Amino acid sequence: MNLTHLDESGQARMVDVSEKPISVRTSTASGRVLLSEEAVAILRSGDTPKGDALGVARIAGIMGAKKTPDLIPLCHPIALHGVKVSLEIVDEGVEITARVKTADKTGVEMEALTAVTVAALGLIDMIKAVDPAAVITDVRVEEKTGGKTGDWRRS
Amino acid sequence: MNLTHLDESGQARMVDVSEKPISVRTSTASGRVLLSEEAVAILRSGDTPKGDALGVARIAGIMGAKKTPDLIPLCHPIALHGVKVSLEIVDEGVEITARVKTADKTGVEMEALTAVTVAALGLIDMIKAVDPAAVITDVRVEEKTGGKTGDWRRS
Amino acid sequence: MNLTHLDESGQARMVDVSEKPISVRTSTASGRVLLSEEAVAILRSGDTPKGDALGVARIAGIMGAKKTPDLIPLCHPIALHGVKVSLEIVDEGVEITARVKTADKTGVEMEALTAVTVAALGLIDMIKAVDPAAVITDVRVEEKTGGKTGDWRRS
Amino acid sequence: MNLTHLDESGQARMVDVSEKPISVRTSTASGRVLLSEEAVAILRSGDTPKGDALGVARIAGIMGAKKTPDLIPLCHPIALHGVKVSLEIVDEGVEITARVKTADKTGVEMEALTAVTVAALGLIDMIKAVDPAAVITDVRVEEKTGGKTGDWRRS
Amino acid sequence: MNLTHLDESGQARMVDVSEKPISVRTSTASGRVLLSEEAVAILRSGDTPKGDALGVARIAGIMGAKKTPDLIPLCHPIALHGVKVSLEIVDEGVEITARVKTADKTGVEMEALTAVTVAALGLIDMIKAVDPAAVITDVRVEEKTGGKTGDWRRS
Amino acid sequence: MNLTHLDESGQARMVDVSEKPISVRTSTASGRVLLSEEAVAILRSGDTPKGDALGVARIAGIMGAKKTPDLIPLCHPIALHGVKVSLEIVDEGVEITARVKTADKTGVEMEALTAVTVAALGLIDMIKAVDPAAVITDVRVEEKTGGKTGDWRRS
Repeated sequence: MNLTHLDESGQARMVDVSEKPISVRTSTASGRVLLSEEAVAILRSGDTPKGDALGVARIAGIMGAKKTPDLIPLCHPIALHGVKVSLEIVDEGVEITARVKTADKTGVEMEALTAVTVAALGLIDMIKAVDPAAVITDVRVEEKTGGKTGDWRRS
Repeated sequence: MNLTHLDESGQARMVDVSEKPISVRTSTASGRVLLSEEAVAILRSGDTPKGDALGVARIAGIMGAKKTPDLIPLCHPIALHGVKVSLEIVDEGVEITARVKTADKTGVEMEALTAVTVAALGLIDMIKAVDPAAVITDVRVEEKTGGKTGDWRRS
Repeated sequence: MNLTHLDESGQARMVDVSEKPISVRTSTASGRVLLSEEAVAILRSGDTPKGDALGVARIAGIMGAKKTPDLIPLCHPIALHGVKVSLEIVDEGVEITARVKTADKTGVEMEALTAVTVAALGLIDMIKAVDPAAVITDVRVEEKTGGKTGDWRRS
Repeated sequence: MNLTHLDESGQARMVDVSEKPISVRTSTASGRVLLSEEAVAILRSGDTPKGDALGVARIAGIMGAKKTPDLIPLCHPIALHGVKVSLEIVDEGVEITARVKTADKTGVEMEALTAVTVAALGLIDMIKAVDPAAVITDVRVEEKTGGKTGDWRRS
Repeated sequence: MNLTHLDESGQARMVDVSEKPISVRTSTASGRVLLSEEAVAILRSGDTPKGDALGVARIAGIMGAKKTPDLIPLCHPIALHGVKVSLEIVDEGVEITARVKTADKTGVEMEALTAVTVAALGLIDMIKAVDPAAVITDVRVEEKTGGKTGDWRRS
Repeated sequence: MNLTHLDESGQARMVDVSEKPISVRTSTASGRVLLSEEAVAILRSGDTPKGDALGVARIAGIMGAKKTPDLIPLCHPIALHGVKVSLEIVDEGVEITARVKTADKTGVEMEALTAVTVAALGLIDMIKAVDPAAVITDVRVEEKTGGKTGDWRRS
């Protein structure tokens, strides 16, 4: 099996998708930021900081999705028609989910993964003074729909 | 304890560091991309694709470090004086380490974490046709040196 | 009535437009930069500086329109098919008009407003040594055409 | 009097500041977004949307300040050591203030003006479905401190 | 004959292409970096550095193609559906070819030229310690296909 | 001799310059765009378009210099304290010179080369409808001053 980003001589390229049809595609990715009890308590404490820390991370994730082709060298610049980033505080930290939708020629898995990781980085930046040991973990595509390869769901 | 990015009324701001002295600071972060056996075998197979897949991810990580203030809403734009991103193939996937150095007024933990995560995203983009189930995990600061709060090392 | 960028729980998201049809849409926005008499006289004085100051502002506005999705957190990245920025010197300063056109799934009001404001910022940067008290004022959408909500014209 | 961004033949250039000393400089700018009564009522209504709409605008403004040298053609890329953007709902709409601080070779008036205008654009994007007639007005530098030309305050 | 980027009064604008049909278009551009014998020998010497220097330049070129509308003031932001950058070591230095493909409303000549020049800049950055006298030369469009003006080939 | 961007194992990295002193450094680069007689005549014809075509290219070059660390993978993000881009119409086309100045830890040769090439691309974009066969040639560093390696001048 070949790595599709590499041509027959192994050189990196942006794969030609000009002949692929435009179709509606979605991708959902998830991930977690593991935090100390103290950091979770602050996020949960219900005064404004909590809202803002998650709010800043959510905006970072949405804007991060738009920067995917700037960050991933061989990623196609594509239209993004919908991005939703959710953050939920749990006992171990914060769970992040990103859902991205497009009607274009390539899938949006990388955009969904980028949204999750940038939201996670944005969250860590907000609480690193409290918890310098935060960990980003379990960042992964959960499902994708649309496109020639069809639907895929993590088993 | 307060979240330093939020002012007394809980509103997000970029913290004033204008009075902080310039000092040499470093940060090392690490993370892993978990891959299927097939994907690891392809990366290990020693023909050009392997080099290029890791090489693209390495460049993505270095360039990602430079984009940190674009990605993290409240991060200061600072000088970056050295960035090194290493990728090592192991049985479970690829281990990534980023070391960032600066002589400036704030630390570079976010830059090191960003370098690791963007390298991980870049790597996944290279192999997602082979392994759509890749997972980014254990992304964390390992140590930092310099600055007023002094050295910190993950225990 | 709801804010369409916020979902039912009030969290920011990029609204899903994947099902919206592609149609030709235009938007015209305008604004003014109020300047001192001395600054207006310099802009009017007919030697090269005048042309260049307006020329730099015009280019800033056109390039600014292209950066709209980078600047506005929840704005969709869309195709821009035509951008025209006009600056006219008047007694009180400079009047700026931007007209943006696309054939895409969302309107271009934000792009037109961004073109006007960035042109205004670019102009101020050129003359702030002469007039540090310049004011940007009356930046607003004048009209839009196309899309499901149809034409709109400021009354 | 000359336009400092233009050389003796009237051609645009980025002015040489390499010999200027580094000093602490601040700038405060303000502006307003005029809104319909209905839009103000929604922003005031106290459920989550309000917080988020202002929160998104605030983040847009802070990130916008960092993009100033990308937007303003002849602006120097400089360090930003602190950025604070405040939004207050008033009867006519929203008042925006941005305060920017640096220790560098040039002033930060353009950064403060950019923070205000991008926050205003971000706010309009959040409420344009409710109020397509929003107007950005009275964007101006209120004061600056530091640098060779010294302090300046709008009279 | 007119310069199409300038309107009837000579002011720069982004030309309206909203009515142009979407069609598959390609462009190939080429260029050369002239290097010293010593630099060519190092690039040819077959250990890892050689691969990496060309690999970094190739990635720079591909990513540069995506940045074309950020770099060229009046360029339309368009979809890029395929980018391939090739570098070949010859006696005088390195020959670079870029081939860009899209299905959109405008041609991709500027994207192909940008890919070649940014790859050349990336290569020079890798070897300038060895050869500070490197020269970029003969950067030009070789051919384009598609679009209303039809195919064109350098004679 | 080694390629300084590659470490002992040949992997790309951003070289550590944190210990290098800050000093004033300049670099001048030049290049040419070869054009058809018709294109030169249009540029020379003295009505507004001429000024604007060169003006747009000049702004593109200055803004391009600021984007150097975004374009060149291993380039340090540094302060730019002065950028001047000159374009002169000659019989064969347009000669471009860029002079860049900084007080920082690394040289600005790449910034000067980037300014020249992006100005050249910007110029070609303005006249490609008239002359699709334009060629960028002879882009090279003419001299640099400052830094540990001292002054260098093309012989």
